Amino acid sequence: MSGATLPQVVRTRAQLREALAEAPRPIGLVPTMGALHEGHASLIQRARRENATVLISIFVNPRQFNELSDFRKYPRDEAADRRLADSAGADIIWIPSVADVYPAGFQTTVTVGALTEPLEGAARPGHFEGVTTIVAILLGLAGAERAYFGQKDAQQLLVIRRMATDLGIGTEIVACPIVREPDGLAMSSRNVRLTPEARAAAPVLRQALLAARARYEAGERDGEALRAAMREMLAKEPLAEPEYVSCASPETLNELDRFDGPALVSMAVRFGSVRLIDNEPLA
Amino acid sequence: MSGATLPQVVRTRAQLREALAEAPRPIGLVPTMGALHEGHASLIQRARRENATVLISIFVNPRQFNELSDFRKYPRDEAADRRLADSAGADIIWIPSVADVYPAGFQTTVTVGALTEPLEGAARPGHFEGVTTIVAILLGLAGAERAYFGQKDAQQLLVIRRMATDLGIGTEIVACPIVREPDGLAMSSRNVRLTPEARAAAPVLRQALLAARARYEAGERDGEALRAAMREMLAKEPLAEPEYVSCASPETLNELDRFDGPALVSMAVRFGSVRLIDNEPLA
Repeated sequence: MSGATLPQVVRTRAQLREALAEAPRPIGLVPTMGALHEGHASLIQRARRENATVLISIFVNPRQFNELSDFRKYPRDEAADRRLADSAGADIIWIPSVADVYPAGFQTTVTVGALTEPLEGAARPGHFEGVTTIVAILLGLAGAERAYFGQKDAQQLLVIRRMATDLGIGTEIVACPIVREPDGLAMSSRNVRLTPEARAAAPVLRQALLAARARYEAGERDGEALRAAMREMLAKEPLAEPEYVSCASPETLNELDRFDGPALVSMAVRFGSVRLIDNEPLA
Repeated sequence: MSGATLPQVVRTRAQLREALAEAPRPIGLVPTMGALHEGHASLIQRARRENATVLISIFVNPRQFNELSDFRKYPRDEAADRRLADSAGADIIWIPSVADVYPAGFQTTVTVGALTEPLEGAARPGHFEGVTTIVAILLGLAGAERAYFGQKDAQQLLVIRRMATDLGIGTEIVACPIVREPDGLAMSSRNVRLTPEARAAAPVLRQALLAARARYEAGERDGEALRAAMREMLAKEPLAEPEYVSCASPETLNELDRFDGPALVSMAVRFGSVRLIDNEPLA
């Protein structure tokens, strides 16, 4: 535990406004869907170092799930989340209801264009519209100087940065590195839903990314060769069902053929009903 | 002229940020497309009374015009606008370029749903998407405590309020009454494009609204009867080509049949190539 006073919990727009009116600036916001793990803790700790007030939001956003079953199964444990947020250094924990986030008569959508089309956007129709709309709302209500997002959702980060620039949102979007388990699996709230066999197999995502990195560092600059290296590694794991494997421009997310300069390799892989993503910037 | 110092003119996001960093709070924003008239002056004067700093934006937004010819013909006179803004009490005049408002790679859209479908939304496809996106950008960049909009664009006002509520935008949206010429014509930047004959005929919009008001005050609560009263008045003016005539719920903008309570009567009428709108709340 970080100190004598537990973080304040606020639930409504009015409570948030009141808490923020008295909060020392700058404010750092860490938007989450709860089910907090060490990846989130690293975001909160970074926000703690860079801001006078750390605000964490916990909201499982129904509008960004493609399958109602995924939304329902999404892990929720408020007591555990509050303990982790506290020990990582949060001052205010904002846990709004769906009705408070989306008030009666709600009918506004924020859409980002080409950046949302490939990869996660292609695999999950409507997902990014849900993400950009909720993040615009959270940034609007919080009015924070900075907001912290994990690199694990690399496309989400690019899309949110684009939205913030385009809409003149005054909050700086801060990207934080992926936090991994000792065996290389990227931290994710979905990891707890893996069967023991799938959990043992899941580090293959990281191994596939490292195979691409090794080829890149050896001088390979053909996107298809890097994708093939990743597919080959994934194929060694019978439980892994690759959904996509990408070697794309880190600015536009367009797939690369021969390239010069940086690339982003990424993938989505299913293990039964659990879908995992991971990525590695090559530069 | 209002005083010794002329208002400061800023053009880029950086200049705006710098000017606002030193500006006393609260800030009142008056977003305009220039071609300022007494209607705009009334918005600026109201902002002057209610805020420590008055910021006016002048930006003819290409994304909200349906016809390129209307965008091109939209009146522009920066020197005259600066004089009027000064004498009405503006402190900062923000005149951004299209490239500054929509930075390279811009791809974000803000959309409001059902409220944008009837009336102006039906007559001008894509118009409100252009309006909500630019207003979100202007509100984001200005970060003002209040923003002032005219009741003449009644649907626009409802749509902007909805967007601001939905996206948690911290700027209060303030509605200001329509300012009219002595003969009842609502002030509009498009009025200067009327031929002398059309200018003489244009007060028929106001007369039609007043015919509906008279029927309402006499107890009429049938939407179709009020629409008929307005159509009848407009039909007396051969130069007037009605585009729509509406008696709608002031909350949802759905057309009313028998009703109880308030209504919004409104219309769009063409005089040759010039399209005028006007409205009257009945309550």
